[in-house]
Parts: sequence; C-alpha cells; structure tokens
Amino acid sequence: MKAGYGERMKTRATLEELATLVGGKVEGDGSLPIRGIASLEDAGEGEITFLAEIKHSRRLEKSRASAAIVPTNLPSFPRPLIRTPNPHLAYAKVQAFFQEKPFSPRGVDSRAFIGEGVKIGRDVSIYPFVYVGAGSEIGDRVILHPGVCLGESVQVGEGSVLYPNVVVMDRCVVGKRVILHPGTVIGSDGFGFARDGKKFVKIPQVGIVVIEDDVEIGANCAVDRAAMGKTWIKRGVKTDNLIQIGHNVTVGEDTVIVAQVGIAGSTEIGNRVALGGQAGVVGHIKIGDGAMIGAQAGVGQDVAPGQILSGSPAFPHREWLRAQAAFPKLPEMKRALAELEKRITQIEEALSGQRSAVSKGPDRA
Amino acid sequence: MKAGYGERMKTRATLEELATLVGGKVEGDGSLPIRGIASLEDAGEGEITFLAEIKHSRRLEKSRASAAIVPTNLPSFPRPLIRTPNPHLAYAKVQAFFQEKPFSPRGVDSRAFIGEGVKIGRDVSIYPFVYVGAGSEIGDRVILHPGVCLGESVQVGEGSVLYPNVVVMDRCVVGKRVILHPGTVIGSDGFGFARDGKKFVKIPQVGIVVIEDDVEIGANCAVDRAAMGKTWIKRGVKTDNLIQIGHNVTVGEDTVIVAQVGIAGSTEIGNRVALGGQAGVVGHIKIGDGAMIGAQAGVGQDVAPGQILSGSPAFPHREWLRAQAAFPKLPEMKRALAELEKRITQIEEALSGQRSAVSKGPDRA
Amino acid sequence: MKAGYGERMKTRATLEELATLVGGKVEGDGSLPIRGIASLEDAGEGEITFLAEIKHSRRLEKSRASAAIVPTNLPSFPRPLIRTPNPHLAYAKVQAFFQEKPFSPRGVDSRAFIGEGVKIGRDVSIYPFVYVGAGSEIGDRVILHPGVCLGESVQVGEGSVLYPNVVVMDRCVVGKRVILHPGTVIGSDGFGFARDGKKFVKIPQVGIVVIEDDVEIGANCAVDRAAMGKTWIKRGVKTDNLIQIGHNVTVGEDTVIVAQVGIAGSTEIGNRVALGGQAGVVGHIKIGDGAMIGAQAGVGQDVAPGQILSGSPAFPHREWLRAQAAFPKLPEMKRALAELEKRITQIEEALSGQRSAVSKGPDRA
Repeated sequence: MKAGYGERMKTRATLEELATLVGGKVEGDGSLPIRGIASLEDAGEGEITFLAEIKHSRRLEKSRASAAIVPTNLPSFPRPLIRTPNPHLAYAKVQAFFQEKPFSPRGVDSRAFIGEGVKIGRDVSIYPFVYVGAGSEIGDRVILHPGVCLGESVQVGEGSVLYPNVVVMDRCVVGKRVILHPGTVIGSDGFGFARDGKKFVKIPQVGIVVIEDDVEIGANCAVDRAAMGKTWIKRGVKTDNLIQIGHNVTVGEDTVIVAQVGIAGSTEIGNRVALGGQAGVVGHIKIGDGAMIGAQAGVGQDVAPGQILSGSPAFPHREWLRAQAAFPKLPEMKRALAELEKRITQIEEALSGQRSAVSKGPDRA
Repeated sequence: MKAGYGERMKTRATLEELATLVGGKVEGDGSLPIRGIASLEDAGEGEITFLAEIKHSRRLEKSRASAAIVPTNLPSFPRPLIRTPNPHLAYAKVQAFFQEKPFSPRGVDSRAFIGEGVKIGRDVSIYPFVYVGAGSEIGDRVILHPGVCLGESVQVGEGSVLYPNVVVMDRCVVGKRVILHPGTVIGSDGFGFARDGKKFVKIPQVGIVVIEDDVEIGANCAVDRAAMGKTWIKRGVKTDNLIQIGHNVTVGEDTVIVAQVGIAGSTEIGNRVALGGQAGVVGHIKIGDGAMIGAQAGVGQDVAPGQILSGSPAFPHREWLRAQAAFPKLPEMKRALAELEKRITQIEEALSGQRSAVSKGPDRA
Repeated sequence: MKAGYGERMKTRATLEELATLVGGKVEGDGSLPIRGIASLEDAGEGEITFLAEIKHSRRLEKSRASAAIVPTNLPSFPRPLIRTPNPHLAYAKVQAFFQEKPFSPRGVDSRAFIGEGVKIGRDVSIYPFVYVGAGSEIGDRVILHPGVCLGESVQVGEGSVLYPNVVVMDRCVVGKRVILHPGTVIGSDGFGFARDGKKFVKIPQVGIVVIEDDVEIGANCAVDRAAMGKTWIKRGVKTDNLIQIGHNVTVGEDTVIVAQVGIAGSTEIGNRVALGGQAGVVGHIKIGDGAMIGAQAGVGQDVAPGQILSGSPAFPHREWLRAQAAFPKLPEMKRALAELEKRITQIEEALSGQRSAVSKGPDRA
C-alpha cells in the first residue's frame, strides 16, 4: 500500500477532536461528526472547511460546509467553528489527518535488486525495479518507489520516502522523514575541472551529500556531491522542483528554495532564508540567516542576515522597486536630458551675447 | 516496433498524392514518384524539398531535389512543384507521411509490472521495467517506454506515448494522443507548507493533474498536482524541456511554453499564449488569451489578452525595447546630468553676479 | 565493481612518483611515501595537500600534511614539496590516481534487457534494469548504470559511463570516454511545430544527437535531437546540471556550460566558449570562439570571438558593469533631472524678465 494520494479514507472525527489536533477552540457543538476537509466552494454536508483570511468571510457564508476553521478574530458566525490563530496550519494538520491511511508496508519486492551487505529496517516498502547498491542501509518504514537507484553505501533514515526514479549516488546520507520527489538526483559529480592548456581535466569529486532530517526536495532537482567533504542540506529545508545545488554548498535549517533556483559551489546559505523562483546565487559567498532573495534575482556578493534583495545583480529590494519603476522612463529621461542640454546651450549663448552686448555696450555708448 | 525515429521507410507517393495530402496545387508532372523529403541542401534524386520563404529561392536553384514544396507566390520555376500558402506545415505533413511505419504493437512485456485491477486497451506497447500501479487504465495503442512509472489509478488515453522514465503519480489523468518526453514528472506534490513558528508543516497535496488531448510536454519537466482540485493542461498545449508548472495552474488551449519556463501556483494562462524561454510567472495571476511573454521575462501581474511583454519585471515589449536600448547609456546620462548641473550652477552664479553687478550698477553710475 | 566513489583504496606512491605524474619538481625527500591527498585542513600524517594560491600559505603552515603541492614561485618552505605551475591541475591528477580502483567489470546483468542485434564490447558493466534497444552498439569498458535506457541503434563509444536513469534515444551517437550524469536525456524531440490555423502540427524530428569524445554532461539535462541532420556536442565539452540544448545546436570543442543554461535551436557555439549559469541564448545565432557569457545573460545576437558579454539583453561586460552600477541611482537621476528642469526654467524666466527689462530699458533711459 502506497503512502500518499489515493482515495480519501473514511476516517471520522468530532469537531472537538479536530480542535484538539490543531490546538484550537470549539465554538458550537463539539460532538459534531466530521468526515473530511475541503475548500469553501467544494466542502459539503459533513465536511469542515477553512477560512484563511477574514476578508473572504462572504465566501464562508455561501459555503455548504458543516463547520469551519476560522481566524481567532472572526466576528461571531452562525455555524460550528474552530478558532485558531493560524487556519492555514490547522488546515494542513486536519487534511493530513484525513489523508492518513492504515500503515501497510509492502516489504521488499522480488523484482527489486538488493546488493551485498545491504541492511534493511522493518516495515519498508521497496517497489519493483528499485536498485540498492552494496553496503547501503535502509531505515524502518522507508518507501523506495519504482525505479529508485541507490548507489553503494548509501544511508536512508527511517520514515523517508523516495519517489519514482530518484537517484542517490554512492555514500550519500539521507536523514529521517526526508521526501525526495520523482526524478531528483542526489550526489552527482560537482562541476570541477582544472585547465590543462586548452583542455579540461576532471577533478575527482570525492565528497558526499548529507541531507538532514525533515528535508523535502522537489522533482527533477540536482544536488551535487562535494569535491571533498560534504554538500550539506540541513534540517527542515524545503525545495521546489528543478533546482540546482552545486558542490560543497551548505543550506541552513528551514530554508525555502523555490523552483528553478541555482546555487553555485561552496556557497553558504543561512537558516530560514527564502530564495525566490529562478534566482541564481554565485559560488563562494554567504547569505545570512533570514535573508530573502527575490524571484529571478542574481546574487553576486555576501548578503547580511535579514536583508531583502531583488534584481540581477541584486540590491536592496526597496531600492530595486524604485529603480525598476523608473526604468521604463529611461528613453523619456534621455530625451529630457537632451532637451535640457539644448535649453542650457541657448541660455549660455544668450548670456554670452548679452555679455558681448554689454561689453560692446560702452563702445556704443 | 517503436513509434518514432528509426530508418526511413521505403514508402513512396506521387507528387499528386503529396499535393492532396497537404492541400496544395501541383505544377508539372503529378505522376512523379517521390521517396522522401529533405532540406534544400540534402535532398537528392527522387526526393522532394521545401522552400519556406521566397528569399531563399537561390538555394532552391542549387538543390538536387526532384521536386519542391513552395509558397503560392513563388514566380514560375523550372521544376515540378507543389504550391501552398504554408510550406512549413506542408513539410510537417509530408515528413510525417514518410516517417510513418507499419503499426506493430509489442504488447505487454513480461518484465513490466502491472498492478491489480489495471485495465489495458488493445494494441499497446508496454516495455520492460514499466511499472503500472493498481487500478490504472491504459487506452488503446498507448506506448509506455522502459522505466515509465504510473502510480495508482492513473488514466492514459488512447494513442498517447510516454517516453522512457516518465513518471505520472497517483490519480492523474493523461488524455489522448499526448506525448510526454523522457524524464518528465506529472503529479509531484505542489510546493505547499504552513508555518508553525520557525518550522514548516507540509500541506497535503490531495489534488491531481489533468492533461487534455493532443498535449506534448518536453523532457525533464515537472508538473505539480493541485493542493485541492486540479492542475490543468488544456488541449493542444506544447511545452519544451525543463519547464516547471506549479500546483493549481491552468494552461489554456494551444498555448506554447518554451524551455525552462516556470509558472507558480494557481496562475491561469489563457489560450494561444506564448511564453518565451526561461520566463517566470508568479502565482495567482491571469495571463489573457493570445498574450506573448518574452524570453527571460518576469511576469508579476495580470496580463491583458493580446499583450506583448518583456523584461523582469515585465512591461510592454515596445517600451522595453526602447528602455533596453537606453540602458547601456546610463553612465553617460549620469555624466551628462552632472555636467549640466555644473553648467547651470555657473549660469546661476553668472546671473547672480550680473544681478549684483546690476544692483551695484546704479551705485557705480 | 563500480567506477567512481567508494572507499579510498590503499594505493601508495612516493613523492617522486607523484611529481612525475603531475610533471612537477620535488623539493625534499622524494622517497617519502604518500597514501592520499586532502585539503589543507583535512590532510594528516602520510597525506599530501595542495596550495592553489600563495596567498593561502598561512593555512599551509598550519596543515598537518606530510607534503604539499605548491605553486612554482612559493618561497622556500620547511616541508617536502612538489612545485608546479598549476597546483589545481596537479591536485586533479593526484586525486584521480588515489581514487583509481582495480578494474573489475561486472558484465551484463541478467536483469538487464538487451535487444536484438545489439553488439556489446569487452569488459562492460551493464546493471540491472538497463534497457538496450535493438541494433545498439556498446563499446569496450562502457558502464551503464541501473535504469539507463538506450533506444534503437544507439552507439556508445568505449570507456563511456552513463549514470542511473540516463536516456539516449534512437540512433544517437555517444563518443568515447563520455560521462552522462543521472537523469540526463539525449535525443528527445526538438521543439518544432507548424501552425495550422490556431492549432499546431508536430514537425517530425528525424535528426539525431552526436556527442563526441571526452564530453561530460551534468544531471537532469536535456539535449534535443535535430529536426533534420544533427545536434552536435563536440569533443571536450563540459556541462553542469539542468541545461537545455535545442535541436540542431552545435557546441564547439572544450566549451563550458554552467548549470541551467538554455540554448535555443540551430545556434552555433564556438570552441572554448564559457556560458555562465542560467544564461539563455536565442536560436539561429553564432557565438564565436572564446567568447564568455555572464550568468543570467540573455544573448539575442551573434557574438564575435573573444567577446565578454553580460546582461539581458547582453552587451559588453565592462559597459554592463558601469550601467548596472548606475541603475540603482535611476530614481535619484530622475529627481535630479526634474530639479535641473526647474532651475533652467527659473533662469529662462529671469532672463526673459531681464530681457524685457533691458528692452524696456531704453524707454526708461
């Protein structure tokens, strides 16, 4: 049985139980049975919905949901409610509750290849066409979907899920509860070459990748192994699809990386940084904790903690907004400049005429 | 037998038959036998070539082709011709005709894995190492190349081709005559997390992806499943490689998406839109029918139908061209500005001197 | 036995032998036994380290390495040395020496699929779940990792390594000693469609991809087959991850392409060109030998040999640096311009007053 999508289970809970789950406060009948959660528009009889922001409360009025998760400060409302400061978070928890399935590991399929000396934990699901290289270690409850390939001496911590066709190359370490989406490659060679005249000689990439606990990496990403030492994705990092992380990069805890971002080699990204979609970061720099980098930005220098940057090359976001607002006016500015130049020249000529008139003045007089 | 590349078949046709195929008009001997189509330079005896634009007619003169597909308005030319308003389209049709092979499905290979309750249509080709999850439905004449992985309850419509290592996750729907190029991932989780203090909690992505008929998606792309509801790729969409489509995005009919484009969550792209290479589109906006977005553009706001935008952030293409043309002159403009400032100050000083001279004048007089 | 990563072998060499390997000069005891190479910080007793640049010589002083590879011009240093003009290159060679393993091909695994008429050279390693299409030819010592899929009539030259889940489509040609990193797709269809009213008709892509000797292509890349003829990656090209190469592109010898670059169809890239990360190149242009294109640049026109360009659209790098430096000052410039305009108007008014005063003057006189 696969973890993940699939038909909704028929789990039920009372409003009170859901309130306890999300740490919220019931208003109305706590014994109300709830069978699922859905959007304001889609929720029906027996389901709960959620209102992320008060400004959408008119849509809540029209909803056919039997109950609602709402912000703490919503005025009173004629329906059973769970009040909570963070309805979005509550939605995530309730949806996860209803999605949960009875745990039924499928074991190791006979069509998987398990190399010599591989250690496999309890309650794993290893699908057909999975390749596990010699000496690898697979933790309890790990799920390796079809086409997953682990090289030699790879470690995958308990509860991790590797989706179809994920590749983890030799000696790389994947923590606990990590999710790697389909097609993602961990531990490909870093991009390192030494010049030998006009040609390039490959620099062996002998390091590894370490992915800590609770990391989630999107589909078709590439995280290169270190030249020496490790490329390091720390606890709680979340990345979107098609991102590129170069060799020896460090990504700090709880950092968020949006789709198609590229980070060049040896750069250190701090904790709780946010990198916008398609942003690029050069190698060998540091981005401080809590910094935010705009979509499509190009970061070429160290970034102090908490800074908010945009543009390519990137500079402070507020200044960038102003500069960008002025940018379409450039042709106009250029014309205005030429115009002023003409007016000044006319003035100068007039003054020079005046002066000569003045200087001639006495002669005439 | 594989659909696609491979040796040219020995099919033959007369010039008249090809003219009928493309809806063109024969000039010269319609019974001329033709055995293939090739470029102006490569076509030889017995082959037809095509002239896309009249300005290349000198290259046609030198061609050794026995016949040519030409624009309607080409002046008379001493060779058998097919005249048509769209030679490019005619080329596509004639090339497809000569590439066509006898249809010979290979059936379901014994090394493929077919889950419980899977329904398989007639004349399919399912290669070794294909995984088809429980409850999936495969239409007639579908081709699943090696390493393709379908999750549970996936639907693939008749005549679709999924190239090697394509992944379609649970419950996603692929229409008829769809082509998915190698390594592409359909239905990976959308990028959705709720903050819980400093950490992130995953928001279950319970929606699906729907890909309608006649869609073609390039290699190593990622199309995320919806948080709830569906990510929706409508009829006739064509995408290049390495593109990213976020959860709950809608892409309208006959829209074209060039390589490495990224579209963030919940955005609605209209019909017949064109997105240039490496362009990025933020989430929760609408791009109107027929809009055109330049390569590397960054679209941050709604786009009206038919608009043509470039730049990051994007604005009307014509204004962008002018602003970009002015951009390299910025340092010069800055210098000119400083220079004018100096001249103005001198004038002001001169005038102030004059004034004081004038004001002193009477004293002197 | 896999080529590549894995435990360090217990190979040993004397300092003299390593000096010969790298073409350097020993200073000190040439008979010193060396068992490995590591960074300045990590190297220990019995290991050699390397100093890439003299400015880091203080870190060398603190290193516990028994010997060091150093630049020719390093002042004398109290430790056994190998002097060489290019320590980085010497490092690459020494590291490769210590990483080398006894060659032990694993043969063709019984769980691989080998099509009809496939020719396989000596000493290959073909892993489980590899698919080799009919008529393909695999050279000596080739390694095909798990999940590799070769279409029909593919050629792979001797000594090449295709990492897990690499796809090479029908009739494509891969040279000798080529390295293709995991998930990369060679020979997917080019992006070619002809308009038929509002719809698009696929133009069959009947060409191939030719990859010459000593090319290395990163993870999750896509190189499209030609519409007709060939997409051509010449000898010694090195690319990073997630790059896109369109149909009929030519990439010249020893050219370097950094991650996430996109090159559109029919463009010709010269020899020894460098393309920075996330750069985009439009179709149908030529980039001359030795040109350098900055990260995130957008190249829309031919580039002369040796040119260095940045920006989107790209222009000469030095001018771009100046324009970018001025860009954040745009709002300030706009204000300055408005200010000057005001001052000029005041001057003009003053002068006009003067003139009228002057013109009135005579009346008064």
